[in-house]
Amino acid sequence: MTRDLIVALSGGIGGAKLALGLSRVVAPADLLVVANTGDDFEHLGMSISPDIDTLTYTLAGLDNTELGWGRRDESWHFMETLAAVGGPTWFRLGDRDLALHAARTARLRAGERLSAITDDIARRLGVGPRILPMSDDAVRTRVLSDGGWLDFQDYFVGQQCRPVVRELAFVGAERAVAHPDLLAALGSSRLLGVVICPSNPFISVEPILAVPGVREAIRGCGAPVIAVSPIIGGKAVKGPTAKMMGELGLAVSAGGVAARYGDLLTHYVVDAADAGVAGEISARVSVARTLMVSVDDKVGLARAVLGAISG
Amino acid sequence: MTRDLIVALSGGIGGAKLALGLSRVVAPADLLVVANTGDDFEHLGMSISPDIDTLTYTLAGLDNTELGWGRRDESWHFMETLAAVGGPTWFRLGDRDLALHAARTARLRAGERLSAITDDIARRLGVGPRILPMSDDAVRTRVLSDGGWLDFQDYFVGQQCRPVVRELAFVGAERAVAHPDLLAALGSSRLLGVVICPSNPFISVEPILAVPGVREAIRGCGAPVIAVSPIIGGKAVKGPTAKMMGELGLAVSAGGVAARYGDLLTHYVVDAADAGVAGEISARVSVARTLMVSVDDKVGLARAVLGAISG
Repeated sequence: MTRDLIVALSGGIGGAKLALGLSRVVAPADLLVVANTGDDFEHLGMSISPDIDTLTYTLAGLDNTELGWGRRDESWHFMETLAAVGGPTWFRLGDRDLALHAARTARLRAGERLSAITDDIARRLGVGPRILPMSDDAVRTRVLSDGGWLDFQDYFVGQQCRPVVRELAFVGAERAVAHPDLLAALGSSRLLGVVICPSNPFISVEPILAVPGVREAIRGCGAPVIAVSPIIGGKAVKGPTAKMMGELGLAVSAGGVAARYGDLLTHYVVDAADAGVAGEISARVSVARTLMVSVDDKVGLARAVLGAISG
Repeated sequence: MTRDLIVALSGGIGGAKLALGLSRVVAPADLLVVANTGDDFEHLGMSISPDIDTLTYTLAGLDNTELGWGRRDESWHFMETLAAVGGPTWFRLGDRDLALHAARTARLRAGERLSAITDDIARRLGVGPRILPMSDDAVRTRVLSDGGWLDFQDYFVGQQCRPVVRELAFVGAERAVAHPDLLAALGSSRLLGVVICPSNPFISVEPILAVPGVREAIRGCGAPVIAVSPIIGGKAVKGPTAKMMGELGLAVSAGGVAARYGDLLTHYVVDAADAGVAGEISARVSVARTLMVSVDDKVGLARAVLGAISG
């Protein structure tokens, strides 16, 4: 049997960029994008799944490239009016973006599974590869700071990652059931490799790994497991990864990320600036342009990832 | 003490027109607009109060005069996108309108009372008179048709009032507590009169009257109780009033509405076309232009109502 199936673990923005690159070089049926749902939360009565939506918009070509988040052709009349009536405005919701949350909420309340809803919305918006929540059960990331435990979005958006992170918890993870299609893919004889996208290890990838059975299934999959470093020359491309690594006592470097994943990795892709990591870790290191600005960058990195595990 | 307080019972569109007229001739502190909440429902995770919102928009000068419902300067990006992702589109929600539902929902979930939320939103949008839900407890109108019981908005919007109405029920009304400020106003020595707006008697006014103590308080208030007929020459200005009267076995006429209110009324305002009703009922009949198209019509009718009970 041909090994052609890629399982990619992804958070939001950074992970979605590589997922888009992969979607241009891997057939839709051969790419399973596993989305972190630890960022999901309930707001204004609605169930919001930020990473699923970022992946959906990006893979549908509907991502807002001006803002760098949310969807294209967005308008903000809801938000303007919410402010006018004194509603909570700390989490910005565009008029079009809102529709996904409302549709998802209605279907969840009617008893549908998050994965089935995600499939249907992705299909309607023209997404090729499957975007699969790691579990249909709720997992909620919480952040322990000096002031106590914070809900993830309160920390991430409300307080813009300012609090110092002491610890992370993935509430519900220990009871969550990994999506069977994720475990099936990891156990498939078709599996070509597992790609850990350049997402934040702590808040985007580890919630996926925290679901019982997932880490073990990756470890036992028999195929290469390759991560792309989210750190370039000691700095995170975006978001709080570097700050969080420092606060959690890790070396703020590509090597620090690799150390965090430990022996889960067989391969690792870093920027030229971090090529020296090859001497520090046991995973096989490839050097590539990991900063993804253009579509060509994303496709190029996807090709480098596939090249590393096929080579 | 001067009798200067007007309590107006109102549903949505038609009632709001007279409430606007009253607001132009009665000082804000002297006008209490009691809103029907029997039309309220939960949709897409949000708590929607159509009559409160119609009154709020109308009294804030934010009503959409082109559509005849909803709010001014509305956009529909949420709805377009909801349709694109296969969400339920039978109830149309504008981008700006949505914000009121979302803000209300968040505050209800945080434990605030509907009346307090309504006050705050109205104040922020610049409404003068107080808009008061009949009760802070949920009352839900249901419609018995040949196919069984229907939720009100399913009948009213979803099925556009097509099913034949056999009976109405106001679920929760018997356990609902009338808002104390409503009972206080009805018992006040300042009360100049109770105005029953030209709303649908069955679905807009009777849910208010169904809350324990309200009908009795109106009957015992000692001030004039005046209704404005929603029927002109045997036809309803808008909505299903006439159709519903026929289905429920009432005469489809201004006299039929008066008969429905019975001895609750001391005064009744009808259009010139219906002046003959004076010979049929015991309430004192005034004739006025009851069709409200322009603001002048609304103010004129408000003056006629006040004139009738002051005369």
